Amino acid sequence: MSKIAVFPGSFDPITTGHESIIRRSLPLFDKIIVAIGVNSTKEGFFPTEKRKQWIEKIFTGVKNIEVKTYKGLTIDFCKQEKANYILRGLRTSADFEFERVIAQMNRSMNDKIETVFILSTPELSAINSTVVRDIIRNNGDASQFVPSAIRKEVK
Amino acid sequence: MSKIAVFPGSFDPITTGHESIIRRSLPLFDKIIVAIGVNSTKEGFFPTEKRKQWIEKIFTGVKNIEVKTYKGLTIDFCKQEKANYILRGLRTSADFEFERVIAQMNRSMNDKIETVFILSTPELSAINSTVVRDIIRNNGDASQFVPSAIRKEVK
Amino acid sequence: MSKIAVFPGSFDPITTGHESIIRRSLPLFDKIIVAIGVNSTKEGFFPTEKRKQWIEKIFTGVKNIEVKTYKGLTIDFCKQEKANYILRGLRTSADFEFERVIAQMNRSMNDKIETVFILSTPELSAINSTVVRDIIRNNGDASQFVPSAIRKEVK
Amino acid sequence: MSKIAVFPGSFDPITTGHESIIRRSLPLFDKIIVAIGVNSTKEGFFPTEKRKQWIEKIFTGVKNIEVKTYKGLTIDFCKQEKANYILRGLRTSADFEFERVIAQMNRSMNDKIETVFILSTPELSAINSTVVRDIIRNNGDASQFVPSAIRKEVK
Amino acid sequence: MSKIAVFPGSFDPITTGHESIIRRSLPLFDKIIVAIGVNSTKEGFFPTEKRKQWIEKIFTGVKNIEVKTYKGLTIDFCKQEKANYILRGLRTSADFEFERVIAQMNRSMNDKIETVFILSTPELSAINSTVVRDIIRNNGDASQFVPSAIRKEVK
Amino acid sequence: MSKIAVFPGSFDPITTGHESIIRRSLPLFDKIIVAIGVNSTKEGFFPTEKRKQWIEKIFTGVKNIEVKTYKGLTIDFCKQEKANYILRGLRTSADFEFERVIAQMNRSMNDKIETVFILSTPELSAINSTVVRDIIRNNGDASQFVPSAIRKEVK
Repeated sequence: MSKIAVFPGSFDPITTGHESIIRRSLPLFDKIIVAIGVNSTKEGFFPTEKRKQWIEKIFTGVKNIEVKTYKGLTIDFCKQEKANYILRGLRTSADFEFERVIAQMNRSMNDKIETVFILSTPELSAINSTVVRDIIRNNGDASQFVPSAIRKEVK
Repeated sequence: MSKIAVFPGSFDPITTGHESIIRRSLPLFDKIIVAIGVNSTKEGFFPTEKRKQWIEKIFTGVKNIEVKTYKGLTIDFCKQEKANYILRGLRTSADFEFERVIAQMNRSMNDKIETVFILSTPELSAINSTVVRDIIRNNGDASQFVPSAIRKEVK
Repeated sequence: MSKIAVFPGSFDPITTGHESIIRRSLPLFDKIIVAIGVNSTKEGFFPTEKRKQWIEKIFTGVKNIEVKTYKGLTIDFCKQEKANYILRGLRTSADFEFERVIAQMNRSMNDKIETVFILSTPELSAINSTVVRDIIRNNGDASQFVPSAIRKEVK
Repeated sequence: MSKIAVFPGSFDPITTGHESIIRRSLPLFDKIIVAIGVNSTKEGFFPTEKRKQWIEKIFTGVKNIEVKTYKGLTIDFCKQEKANYILRGLRTSADFEFERVIAQMNRSMNDKIETVFILSTPELSAINSTVVRDIIRNNGDASQFVPSAIRKEVK
Repeated sequence: MSKIAVFPGSFDPITTGHESIIRRSLPLFDKIIVAIGVNSTKEGFFPTEKRKQWIEKIFTGVKNIEVKTYKGLTIDFCKQEKANYILRGLRTSADFEFERVIAQMNRSMNDKIETVFILSTPELSAINSTVVRDIIRNNGDASQFVPSAIRKEVK
Repeated sequence: MSKIAVFPGSFDPITTGHESIIRRSLPLFDKIIVAIGVNSTKEGFFPTEKRKQWIEKIFTGVKNIEVKTYKGLTIDFCKQEKANYILRGLRTSADFEFERVIAQMNRSMNDKIETVFILSTPELSAINSTVVRDIIRNNGDASQFVPSAIRKEVK
């Protein structure tokens, strides 16, 4: 059975932290689906289509990566995509507590899908999309926190 | 002096986690008041009256339980009800940090009222009302996370 | 059924933190057994008999408190004493993580015995027997961290 | 080079916890700028001008303290004020996790500015502006949680 | 390149928690090496050979599992075995903090080896070898905490 | 009053993490005393004299640094050295919980001495002396984790 992982998130915008998790996890799976969760009631900071294009641009030429958007529960999306793994990065123990709740609820609803974690590298462990948006909103320079391929566009 | 505990929350909706905490704590107190905090500025997901009916249904025939709604500070409600204990469940260390702040502030304002904690059982420790609402909102099946007595109604 | 709680520890020595937990929990139970766990392979800093006498002195005239020593598992001691509760104080989230493991293991072995927690008061939350012993070992004055009744003796 | 620290926050309202951090840190710096961050999209509970007056009143006659408001990124404000330190208080490990992210992001953007932390004193460690506002909103008495100089005004 | 993971530990003794992590991770790797770290200066509770036999017995007939003992650094053992992954289970945020330090140090020494984490299932999250040994030492019944295949032997 | 800080530790051996904390804190104080705590009952991995020489070598030519050894309580040593600050680095929330206990106990015994914290930089946050000793014990190469000035000597 092929090993397909969903890497879910809002990627609003994708950060160097996300990029690192994806690249480092690629050898472990046959395919990684970067899955942009779309919330029907809350609009994002950047348009969904823009976020998708940025991720596609970053991984241009990288096989085994797909970028998709989805609505609804992550486990339902996994099932639809025949993915048996959810991939998540861990930065802090606050992350861990949050992720544990989500992973256990997912497991209660579908124990065929396993959540796999890898650690953020230390120098990227403070980076998150919320802070990146906050810097941009305040006219700061957040370019070092987003992947080099899209650095000129995210502002 | 009789031992009366208030178990405060929004119960939007009540989960199997809440139910377990209440049932396991019953022998410790003469009465437990399940107290639904009503926020005058923020409406809940389910109507207050519905939440109250569900809890009453779950504990039908169980003596020593009352279900009430209240506005304002929890310690003021305790005083009004002559309750000398606040009962809380603990799931994670994030819970603990949050509960400690609330309990210490309450103690500063009224040191006659003691907060008593019991642990969620492991298999219920990931369940919380926020995730339950999120599943329902996304048309998922959350029935296993709410008490069996109301499983057919909460959706 | 009467409510009997075991408050287990090494009490080497008992601190003002322990004393506060016991006094605040007294109204909740019909009897609290302060239970000094004796480790057959590791000797304590103070002799077991001394530790027991100190606790007895502190609670002289207080009804509903017994001081005992025990060997073996805490849940076996509870069963022997017909205690249905284990009482523990919580100071920090590190405490919480540790206590959760113990409480869940105990529950797996005997689900008739419930562990009940109350919070240390903030000004006592840093006090623990290890640091007290360390101060004494270094000829410091630890008297403010032990109950007033035994302040002159513990050094 | 003189040691100038910025103590940033929303101070909505300033608490006894904030006051304690500032007073205890004064000997360490040549000047502390209490900096009220103004969010252009989200109004506060108390008007910015009121919050500023309260802080000025509390520190009347105390040299080496300035109270200012600022918009935009904290590190940009620091640069403008020639401040080389950001001062922060730590209450809980949840605080720590949050502060670490902010401090590391700030450091990535400007490694000339160092963040310095001191601990809240235990008896003040549960106090935060959110809970204070919550008490006021519910007609409770929060006066013990705000500095004595402004106790009669904050309600 | 084949995906080989080392699952290092002292397994003194192996618990149902360990067993669950291994079984759930099997589909992710081509081979898992259960690696018993041998400390030359500190003897274990059970003899190394016994611990190895127990693990072999549990996984009798399961392909893709090897049980080995090793001395020295885990990353040196990985290199020797041509393993590119270290597998670890996560139970609590205390676990997480500990594992992060180890994983980052390993990464600093050899960034070809990635540490992959999966979560313990909730009902097993309190089980650890230290507590199991403690129960056995106190003549308690720890059989429910060790894999069924060896339940009669571990005591 | 001059600002003198004690930076206490066992420095067995000093790491790049320690070195970074000291260098970054130098501008904040008039003098930093790197204070090697000597435990009369427990010998270190490296001899005290060696540890002291290494630190002196690293900071050769750096004004405002002194290296001393001390026995007994840190606050007694501070008083003797007329130091009004204790300097500590924070890496993780586990660190924070530990340091808070120590700092609060110190404050209870002498409220003239303030503990000041700065954060480890992310890429150094996993480094600690225990792991360094463990690598050396297992014949690994720990040189990247100790300051460059002593890299050839620590093994």
